[in-house]
Amino acid sequence: MNYFSSDFKLGILGGGQLGKMMLTETRKFDIQTYVVDPSAEAPCQFGATKFFQGSLNDYDTVINLGNQVDVLTIEIENVNLEALETLEKEGKKVYPSPKTLRLISNKGNQKDFYALNNIPTAPYKRYKTLPALKIDVENGLVELPFVWKATEGGYDGNGVKVVRQVIDLENLPETECIAETMIPFKNELAVIVARSTSGEIKTYPVVEMEFHPEANQVEYVICPARISETVANNAREIALKVSESFNHVGLLAVEMFQTADDQILVNEVAPRPHNSGHYSIEASYTSQFEQHIRAILDLPLGNTDSKVAGIMVNLVGEEGFSGQVVYENIEKIMAIDGVTPHIYGKRETRPFRKMGHVTIVNENMTEARKVAQQVKETIRVISK
Amino acid sequence: MNYFSSDFKLGILGGGQLGKMMLTETRKFDIQTYVVDPSAEAPCQFGATKFFQGSLNDYDTVINLGNQVDVLTIEIENVNLEALETLEKEGKKVYPSPKTLRLISNKGNQKDFYALNNIPTAPYKRYKTLPALKIDVENGLVELPFVWKATEGGYDGNGVKVVRQVIDLENLPETECIAETMIPFKNELAVIVARSTSGEIKTYPVVEMEFHPEANQVEYVICPARISETVANNAREIALKVSESFNHVGLLAVEMFQTADDQILVNEVAPRPHNSGHYSIEASYTSQFEQHIRAILDLPLGNTDSKVAGIMVNLVGEEGFSGQVVYENIEKIMAIDGVTPHIYGKRETRPFRKMGHVTIVNENMTEARKVAQQVKETIRVISK
Repeated sequence: MNYFSSDFKLGILGGGQLGKMMLTETRKFDIQTYVVDPSAEAPCQFGATKFFQGSLNDYDTVINLGNQVDVLTIEIENVNLEALETLEKEGKKVYPSPKTLRLISNKGNQKDFYALNNIPTAPYKRYKTLPALKIDVENGLVELPFVWKATEGGYDGNGVKVVRQVIDLENLPETECIAETMIPFKNELAVIVARSTSGEIKTYPVVEMEFHPEANQVEYVICPARISETVANNAREIALKVSESFNHVGLLAVEMFQTADDQILVNEVAPRPHNSGHYSIEASYTSQFEQHIRAILDLPLGNTDSKVAGIMVNLVGEEGFSGQVVYENIEKIMAIDGVTPHIYGKRETRPFRKMGHVTIVNENMTEARKVAQQVKETIRVISK
Repeated sequence: MNYFSSDFKLGILGGGQLGKMMLTETRKFDIQTYVVDPSAEAPCQFGATKFFQGSLNDYDTVINLGNQVDVLTIEIENVNLEALETLEKEGKKVYPSPKTLRLISNKGNQKDFYALNNIPTAPYKRYKTLPALKIDVENGLVELPFVWKATEGGYDGNGVKVVRQVIDLENLPETECIAETMIPFKNELAVIVARSTSGEIKTYPVVEMEFHPEANQVEYVICPARISETVANNAREIALKVSESFNHVGLLAVEMFQTADDQILVNEVAPRPHNSGHYSIEASYTSQFEQHIRAILDLPLGNTDSKVAGIMVNLVGEEGFSGQVVYENIEKIMAIDGVTPHIYGKRETRPFRKMGHVTIVNENMTEARKVAQQVKETIRVISK
C-alpha cells in the first residue's frame, strides 16, 4: 500500500488535541486525512485534508466518514459503535476494533476481561444496581473503604468515588457499577503499547505520575519512571500481555498501580494516544502519534526508546477564569532550556479545561524535575 | 504580545517545504498563519489558517498579504522586494529585513559586504559585463582555474561554473558576475544562526556536507561536523559575526569552506530555515523551524544543542522518472531505528526535484553514518 502523497485516506473520529497531534505526523508523511468533530473550531480544523463538523455519536455521520476513507481510527472512544461495527462488517479497516471499544466502554466487562486473561487487577465485584451493592455492604460482603466505579459513561475521573462510610453510598447514582478493593499503592504508572495490524508489538518505557502532595492531582508525568528495573520490566510485560489479549491494533495506554509490595495491577486502558505519552514528542525516538499512524497502517514500528529524560506538565484552565485564553508567563518558561509548550488551539479557557501541555526534556532527570517544577510554578492559563 | 490562540497573524511568503515545516511549529503554538504560494497544491495548502494562491513577485500580492498580518516572514528569498520595502516603511514588521534580502540577492554586493565587515571569504573580483572579465583573464589578472558566479538569479548551484580554460568563458551568459579564487577545501560546513528582534543570538553546532566520492553532489548533512573543536568554534564565531553584521532577525544559514590549512571562508548565506538544518527536527532540543518563529516573534531562543547525532539525506526525484510519485522501499527504511522520512507533499516527481528528506538519529555517530548509507541505498523516489 502506498500512503505517501497518494490517494489513500485516513479517517479520524474526533478533532481534539490528540487528533491535532496525529495530524502533525500525517502532514509529515503527507498522508491524506478526513476528520470529524462536533465543534467547528476544534483543534483539527487546520491541518486535515478535509474537516467536517458532525456528532461522533450520530450513526450516519460515522458511516459517512467511513465510506470516504480507506482506514478509520479514533482519537476519542465515545463514538457511535454500531456504525463502526457496520463499517467493519462491510470490510472497512477500523482500528482499534469496535469490539475492543465496546468491551472497554464497560468497566465491568473490562475487569472481567482482565480476570479471564490472567491480567493482574484489583479484586472487584459487579453490581447491576446500586441497591444490590448496598445489600452486600450491609452484609459485610464488601469491605469499607472501597472504590465505587460506574461501569459506563465515566470520563477523566468522573464516575469514580471512594466509599469510606456507609453514608457515602447515598450520594452515588443509580447505575450499574463495580466495587473495587482499595489498594494501597506506591505509584501510578502507565505503559504505552503499540501493536500493528501484522502483530508487531513494542512497549514504551514506563512512565510515572507524580501527584501533588496535598491536592489529589497528577502534577507531572515522568519518563522513565523512577522505579527499579525489575518493576519496570514487569510493568512492560503485563502491558504487552494486555495489548495482545485484546488483539489490539494501534496504541494502547495501560494505566497501572505499583502496590506497596511491588505488585503491578492494571487499572484501566485507553485505546489510543494518551496524555501519559505526550512526553514522547520531544523525548522519544518515535512520538506516540507517529507510532499510532505506523501501527494502524501496518508500517514498521519505530524505536520506543528515549533520547533524553522527559517530563510533561498539563496546562489546564486556572480556577476563576473563563473566556479568551491568555498563557501568562509563557515567554518565561520558553526561556528555559528544553522547555516546549504545546498549545492545543482552544480560544476559550474554563476552569480545569485541558488547554495544552508543556514538555521538559533534559539529559539529566534531576535537572528535568527541577525545571518542571519551575514551569508549573510560572505559567498560568487565565483569561483576558 | 500574545501570540498563542490569539488574533495575532503571521504572514509567510512561500508555501513550499520550508513553509510547511514552519507550519508544524505554528500549529504547535496555535499561532495564526496566512500563506501565499504560486501553486494551489503547494505543501502549505494544509495547516495554514489561510492559504492564498498568488505570485510572490507580484507587488500587489505581497502588499495584500502584508496588510492582513502583524508580522511577515519568508520561506524563499525570491519575492517582490519593493513591496516588502513599502510595507516596512509603513511600519509593518518584516523579518528578515528587505534591506538584507536585497543585499544578499546580489552576490557581488554580498561579497563586498563580507569584505567591508572583515568576514573571511575567498578573494574575488566583480565584473559588470562578461567581456570585462574576459579582458582580465586575457591579461592574466584573473588566474585559471577560477569560480565564475552570476551576481543575480542563481539558485541551487545554478549560475555557478568552474572556469578551467579560456574556452570555458565562451559558454557563460552575458551578465554581471564575479570571478572567485578557487580554494582547495577539506570540508563544506554550515552554521545556522538564530537572532531575535531584541538581539538575542545563538548558533547551532557546525554541520558538514559529505559529498559523493565521484559525483560532485552532497550525500549527507552531518551534525555535528567531524572536525576539531577549534575549527568548529571558529566557524561558529564567524557565523555569529555574519548574522550580527547584517543585524539579521530570524535564521541565517551560513555556508562555509574549511580550507586545507583550516581557515574558515564564508561562501554564502540563506536568510531563513535551510536544508542544512533539517536534522534539527529530530536531533536538536529546538528545531530550526521553531527557532525561526521564536526569533521573529521576539520570544526567547531555544537551546540549540543536540540530543543525539543527526544525519540528513535529501530525497530527490530519480532520473528517468516523472509523474505521480512513489517512495519505493520507504517501509524498509522506516523499519530501521532512528529513521524518520519527511514527505513534502508534492504529488508529481521529476528528476532531481526535492521531494522530501530523511533524518537519521543515533546516540552514536558512526552508527548513524552507517544507517544513513543504508537509507540512501534503499529508498528511491520514482513514479507510478
